[in-house]
Amino acid sequence: MSASRRTIGILGGGQLARMLALAGYPLGFRFVCLDPSPASPAQDVATLIVGDFADESARARLLEAADLITFEFENVPLSCVEALAAHRPLHPSPIALRNAQDRLIEKQCFEAAGLPVHPYRAPGSEREFLAAVAELGLPCVVKTRRMGYDGKGQAVIRSMPDARAAWASLGGAPLLVEAFVPFTSECSLIAVRSTAGEVAFYPWTANIHRGGILRTSLAPAPDLPAEWRSTAEQRAAALLTSFNYVGVLAIEFFVTPSGLLTNEMAPRVHNSGHWTMDAGITSQFENHIRAIAGLPLGPTTLDGHAGMINLIGESPEPRAVLALSPRHRLHLYGKDPRPGRKLGHINVRSASREQVETDLALAASLPGAGG
Amino acid sequence: MSASRRTIGILGGGQLARMLALAGYPLGFRFVCLDPSPASPAQDVATLIVGDFADESARARLLEAADLITFEFENVPLSCVEALAAHRPLHPSPIALRNAQDRLIEKQCFEAAGLPVHPYRAPGSEREFLAAVAELGLPCVVKTRRMGYDGKGQAVIRSMPDARAAWASLGGAPLLVEAFVPFTSECSLIAVRSTAGEVAFYPWTANIHRGGILRTSLAPAPDLPAEWRSTAEQRAAALLTSFNYVGVLAIEFFVTPSGLLTNEMAPRVHNSGHWTMDAGITSQFENHIRAIAGLPLGPTTLDGHAGMINLIGESPEPRAVLALSPRHRLHLYGKDPRPGRKLGHINVRSASREQVETDLALAASLPGAGG
Repeated sequence: MSASRRTIGILGGGQLARMLALAGYPLGFRFVCLDPSPASPAQDVATLIVGDFADESARARLLEAADLITFEFENVPLSCVEALAAHRPLHPSPIALRNAQDRLIEKQCFEAAGLPVHPYRAPGSEREFLAAVAELGLPCVVKTRRMGYDGKGQAVIRSMPDARAAWASLGGAPLLVEAFVPFTSECSLIAVRSTAGEVAFYPWTANIHRGGILRTSLAPAPDLPAEWRSTAEQRAAALLTSFNYVGVLAIEFFVTPSGLLTNEMAPRVHNSGHWTMDAGITSQFENHIRAIAGLPLGPTTLDGHAGMINLIGESPEPRAVLALSPRHRLHLYGKDPRPGRKLGHINVRSASREQVETDLALAASLPGAGG
Repeated sequence: MSASRRTIGILGGGQLARMLALAGYPLGFRFVCLDPSPASPAQDVATLIVGDFADESARARLLEAADLITFEFENVPLSCVEALAAHRPLHPSPIALRNAQDRLIEKQCFEAAGLPVHPYRAPGSEREFLAAVAELGLPCVVKTRRMGYDGKGQAVIRSMPDARAAWASLGGAPLLVEAFVPFTSECSLIAVRSTAGEVAFYPWTANIHRGGILRTSLAPAPDLPAEWRSTAEQRAAALLTSFNYVGVLAIEFFVTPSGLLTNEMAPRVHNSGHWTMDAGITSQFENHIRAIAGLPLGPTTLDGHAGMINLIGESPEPRAVLALSPRHRLHLYGKDPRPGRKLGHINVRSASREQVETDLALAASLPGAGG
């Protein structure tokens, strides 16, 4: 079979898998996804194997169909990824996945690469937990070490009664306690590394969350000192290289008056990189495909400014989005509406940051985009 | 079912259908194609109904699945399109298709809109045919009135023995004879008209054919006087409006020292518009979908220069294409190689026309792109 007809298997069939497939067909690939849900958004554009990640027969079908494998979310079981990696090229590697799945190991990786993190403790008992809260001071944040996303599995502690309540609700799982450091904004860095070891970064993205879910992104992130960016990029490059990472990796940061604090990483394409789809460059989806398939990376340098707003819970009529301006680009995921669910996003791009901000504000008036 | 989950049916499942589907998913549509071949390139990204266009049960399945219908090639039987149009919104209309399927009617439409054509005759007998050849002078060109594409169904007549041979080989079908008018180059105009009657044009494209098959496109077409372009656009707009046309229409022209001569039209997305996919504007595929679905059209104004080269018969390794430069963008159709078959294309774009020409020349060194 020629390189141009290879099939890429994706663990997960959500919107990220869907957008990976849409980006990968022009390069000649085919796509097969494994997902427990028969209503997975990727099924419109990929063969869908419905099954649990732990289901060996489903995994065998994936192995039969796929020449190489990747994943679209970081909470796929490590054992599943390790089992598949024994049979097919699989990127990012199980080691990168393991490091990203546990907030403690993740922080240790950041520290080893010189990326600053919040003061933190990893308590092993309620006593250690309460001591950690006392040491780090109030307020502080408690998070489960595993399976957190979109603000799930975490709580802010403002008092010692809060602390005891948090232990009661989350203490059944390994926890991490972080000092609360006031921040002025949030940003992210989307990196990609090829099999040849080439590393590229997209422009830094400023992100606004609401209720723990990303609401809007703006790139390049305004007002980030060049030195902070270049230092963080050097260290992120070292982090990627230390994992022998292949594919797209997103790193989220808090911006504080004294510098960047590294929050977490996602070993996959990331919501804060969706603006790359309409920015006149190689999208994060295409570059992830290029990277895992051993192809040269495409350009990541944005000319001008770009923005993105998520459509959450409900979705406007396509006509209303496209009528906003010629700059508004719609990306729907083919999902049924449900409160809190990411149903799509709108991208905008302009030579002027003010125009991008105006366009995002315009879009925010639509159902699902504002409220 | 909400407007965002409508399914678009496409008659034909070739690369044009494939690229229509890839462009339409982000707008929330699903796709189903009807094609006689079980190996249709669109099947990777759309539900494929395998059946003849004349097969009523296949058509019934298409009607059941599709909320609106379009076609990707102009040689689908008119009766099929008319039958489907009785049950579902179908664009472009059967009238537009009829006008484009017959070279005589096509020329009459061009003339009615004020678009100049070659001197021509439509002979009804061998005697009329030979008289037409004598009147129009040698050399001249004979074409079947129907079912011609990529140079098929036509012949150049350089002598009266040629004429008799052409009659013997093509005279079983209605013919058209055209005077040969020396031309300096070929170009095309990709137009799109919405259900609201909005008409937009992409920049004029210069095209180079070899063996009757498009080899490369360059946009904007260099050295086309602005007055020629604006006059032709006004008349093309009138043509689209006279058909109550909805969707993308391509019109091909010959450039002669004294002006443009209108060659033919294709009531569909067109190979000479493939460069629009990577030009930072709304592609012809997305604008066709927007038009037929009643959505506002997207921008068609190119900033800079763009080019396209077809991959014919054989296909280079993706790695070799992407390694040429960051500007080379690959579009493969998922087809098995076969001599003369369009397997994909490469798009390039730059602020400079010289760079686009250099990039096309670089690409021409690859298998399938040159030779």
